[in-house]
Amino acid sequence: MPYTIGLDYGTNSVRCLIVDVTNGNELATAVWEYETGEAGIILDPSDHNLARQNPEDYLKGMKITIGQAIAQAKETNKSFDTNQIIGIGVDTTGSTPIPVDKNGTPLSMLDEFKDNPNACAWLWKDHTGHAEAAEITQLAEKDHPEYLARCGGTYSSEWFFSKILHCLRVDPKVFDAAYTWVEHADWLPAILTGNEAPDKLRRCRCAAGHKAMFNDDWGGYPAAEFLSKLDPKLGELRKTLSDQTYAVDQAAGQLTEQWATELGLPAGIPVAMGAFDAHLGAVGSGIAPGKLVKIIGTSTCDMLVSPSDQKLADIPGICGVVDGSILPGHYGLEAGQSAVGDIFNWFVNYIQAGGKEAGSHEALTEKAAKLKPGQSGLLALDWNNGNRTILVDQRLTGLLIGQTLHTKPEEIYRALIEATAFGALTIINRFEEYGVKVSEVINCGGIAEKNALLMQIYADATGREMKVSRSAQSCALGAAIAGAVVAGEASGGYDNFADAQAAMCGIKNVTYKPIAEHHKVYKQLYDLYKQLHDAFGVQKWSGKLANVMKELLNIKDSTQG
Amino acid sequence: MPYTIGLDYGTNSVRCLIVDVTNGNELATAVWEYETGEAGIILDPSDHNLARQNPEDYLKGMKITIGQAIAQAKETNKSFDTNQIIGIGVDTTGSTPIPVDKNGTPLSMLDEFKDNPNACAWLWKDHTGHAEAAEITQLAEKDHPEYLARCGGTYSSEWFFSKILHCLRVDPKVFDAAYTWVEHADWLPAILTGNEAPDKLRRCRCAAGHKAMFNDDWGGYPAAEFLSKLDPKLGELRKTLSDQTYAVDQAAGQLTEQWATELGLPAGIPVAMGAFDAHLGAVGSGIAPGKLVKIIGTSTCDMLVSPSDQKLADIPGICGVVDGSILPGHYGLEAGQSAVGDIFNWFVNYIQAGGKEAGSHEALTEKAAKLKPGQSGLLALDWNNGNRTILVDQRLTGLLIGQTLHTKPEEIYRALIEATAFGALTIINRFEEYGVKVSEVINCGGIAEKNALLMQIYADATGREMKVSRSAQSCALGAAIAGAVVAGEASGGYDNFADAQAAMCGIKNVTYKPIAEHHKVYKQLYDLYKQLHDAFGVQKWSGKLANVMKELLNIKDSTQG
Repeated sequence: MPYTIGLDYGTNSVRCLIVDVTNGNELATAVWEYETGEAGIILDPSDHNLARQNPEDYLKGMKITIGQAIAQAKETNKSFDTNQIIGIGVDTTGSTPIPVDKNGTPLSMLDEFKDNPNACAWLWKDHTGHAEAAEITQLAEKDHPEYLARCGGTYSSEWFFSKILHCLRVDPKVFDAAYTWVEHADWLPAILTGNEAPDKLRRCRCAAGHKAMFNDDWGGYPAAEFLSKLDPKLGELRKTLSDQTYAVDQAAGQLTEQWATELGLPAGIPVAMGAFDAHLGAVGSGIAPGKLVKIIGTSTCDMLVSPSDQKLADIPGICGVVDGSILPGHYGLEAGQSAVGDIFNWFVNYIQAGGKEAGSHEALTEKAAKLKPGQSGLLALDWNNGNRTILVDQRLTGLLIGQTLHTKPEEIYRALIEATAFGALTIINRFEEYGVKVSEVINCGGIAEKNALLMQIYADATGREMKVSRSAQSCALGAAIAGAVVAGEASGGYDNFADAQAAMCGIKNVTYKPIAEHHKVYKQLYDLYKQLHDAFGVQKWSGKLANVMKELLNIKDSTQG
Repeated sequence: MPYTIGLDYGTNSVRCLIVDVTNGNELATAVWEYETGEAGIILDPSDHNLARQNPEDYLKGMKITIGQAIAQAKETNKSFDTNQIIGIGVDTTGSTPIPVDKNGTPLSMLDEFKDNPNACAWLWKDHTGHAEAAEITQLAEKDHPEYLARCGGTYSSEWFFSKILHCLRVDPKVFDAAYTWVEHADWLPAILTGNEAPDKLRRCRCAAGHKAMFNDDWGGYPAAEFLSKLDPKLGELRKTLSDQTYAVDQAAGQLTEQWATELGLPAGIPVAMGAFDAHLGAVGSGIAPGKLVKIIGTSTCDMLVSPSDQKLADIPGICGVVDGSILPGHYGLEAGQSAVGDIFNWFVNYIQAGGKEAGSHEALTEKAAKLKPGQSGLLALDWNNGNRTILVDQRLTGLLIGQTLHTKPEEIYRALIEATAFGALTIINRFEEYGVKVSEVINCGGIAEKNALLMQIYADATGREMKVSRSAQSCALGAAIAGAVVAGEASGGYDNFADAQAAMCGIKNVTYKPIAEHHKVYKQLYDLYKQLHDAFGVQKWSGKLANVMKELLNIKDSTQG
């Protein structure tokens, strides 16, 4: 019986899954919380934008979780033998770049830079480079608008070059000492396969394409001439970035003897190229053309793939379209909502409507479930954290309309859920308007698992059946699938993702089917949602209300002075 | 030293004030809560629209409070003698009509109709006649649009004819037994002066003009032909409604011997024509041309007067313009906000943001006071209970915009206060746009007395000094002033309201002056408020969002089925 390992590096912990390659069943699972900083994140009390991680936690966590998972597997299945493990896959957060030396060693692991946060991994949610992000956006608008066209028109502070340029500005010593910068998703597979030296390192398509403006259309990473204008040293760095990137069906290499011994695994088994958690989560949820995978958590990531041998129209507002970023041979299309669970958490934690007990998620959900669609007379826009898709505008805010003197907390709570459902529908509609068919919706993530009311509302609002991925660990499962694909059929794995997914992915028995009567009401409400969406979100809309949220933010900003 | 009595009939209790005519000081005050029903209101558990009162409570309350006030006056001022009382004024709620027989006796005081709520006083907030109100509106739109033009385009279920027609429909026995219907404000002074028999009864301009479509332009009350189309019996009733009405500087008559003995007051002193509480509240707050009086409570009543010998333009959205309704010789202009305190109460009682303690008015106010104008990035519309002025539209609802993932309850609370301030400013602007100058703003009512933050925000938002009426009992004081005017200078009173108000009204020492820096920010915010106001509230606005709130209510209504 062949097995593969899926290693899933989240924001606060790493998880190891040992998966049965024949059916996708989890034989064992182990989780370890990173030990450096607060909940695994190095913070700076004087700068809330800073979020770093200790690369040593990545190694320690891998050793611990693989060890525990193997022990658990042996206990569960007496006939289990580590020689049955035929491959490894890895997913991580991103963009989470690490400055490394000529040997591929993170600078934070050298004595000279120990305890220097700038020498650590710059976690995806580090926003210290916001000024540099604006600078990059500005220059690209002028010199290379095509760079921005593929990433929604704005280069984010969360991304690769914003972070590197910021380091160059605030800690030139670290920058100068770094031979190059490596994404966590690339570094970990490289380490396991002894390919961490920058000249041997393989970089993944997913991180390069979605976060570092990599595209074959312009010869890979942005031109040295472009980066030099930001800083000559950044131009120099360009030389260390290969023109070749790799999709997740490629191996980063083979597990070294040394690591095999240390981890108790067979030497020489292939380690797949790394990828971002959401992308392998999509794989683990069974993504394929026509199948939309929604990872629903604090925010959502909505993913589709489209065969790359077929022409794909430019889809306005869909910011990430990268060939091979999710599945090889397919464009990976990434959309998303900037806040979903975060909006409900805001209402529960900040507004505390009804007080701590009556205002809990559980209590509000129970009461909200008793309301009929439309009964509250409320309607909301789901923009408390801006709108990532289809408006691509961080400077949008929330809106609630329809309050009377009798409006109750559970009515608002339900309106917020409905607003996110309408946001989800707007994304689906946009895909379909531009010829990308959505024939099936598969949900995964904590909220999809736990919140039946939300899933039913999504079904009712979209008029589509909502399916839920069978595995509660879609990302780790996706990594294990990648491990099975790089192992190949000859080793007991699969030669392609379609076969691997057919065997290893599944859908829960319970699905959420739209209730016709509810859908009818939600169609009316969605018309109104779309009216508000366009009025407040579309700059060129005739009503000219798109200024309101922005001017309020401008006034708010001006009060900070 | 001359004194007058002000009798103030509120929704749940009656108050008697004995006032020093020379300076307006309160010598004594007594309050009695009506004893029939719940908090003085006869309710029907099966019909939440029903709200009646027992006229006997009005008499009993008068006797008790006058008795207590006299006793208190004697205790406070040893030289006080009831012979120093030179006049009486009365204010009541309205429209609160009472069915009476040929002697002017309320039917509920006859054995035959005892315990029949339809034979009692129909309290202002009784909405049982909503279907009849719609019927009256419809007929007037067709036959006599001029009737509606003076009352905002819609005849309300709270008003005189809606209630009478409803009684005719549901309890013809009561209707048939009633010789006529008399407003509480007319009935009480008539009783005291022995003029309650319908042929002697004087009806006040204020109730007739604001609630019963009375106007000299069309010969007083609506034509019998009009009323007959609603029901021939209503046409018959028209005969009992005199073509003459009286302003509050006129006496309803003189206190009878019998009542003088019973109350311990001098016989023959004049009793002023009654008026509605808000109108005499305006008098007690010193209303005069240019002086806007705002009574701020759960809702607001905003009153201005304009000399009736000067031409007054039609002011769109100002629904009550009645010659002599507040001051004789002046048009009384009545505007208002459908909810002010009610919006804050909604947020505190229904949303309970932060829980019962942290979400109290006190706690929220304390935190909201620490915020700078504009700091929250929030903006609200104050329409949770519709918009009375200037949009005259009950089917509008609330709106909140600008929420982020960090928005806090006190920020929303402050935004709601600011929204009511912007609503107040919109009313002031409308008056001034049509040539009615507002040179001074005098506030009274519970919120004006107690909420310094709100008053300061009103000053900052409007850029105008906010003054607060000196008396906490403006309505009762206004009634006492009316008593002093009908007594006349010869008896120690005054020959006109201007002189009486000059002596008896005042402003508190503490006023709220606009802070320039705040006003600057609020000007920016008001521009945005006005944009939203017009977009969602003005039917003909180009952006066509005025449908949104109404369609939400339509959808809501349709879920009730």
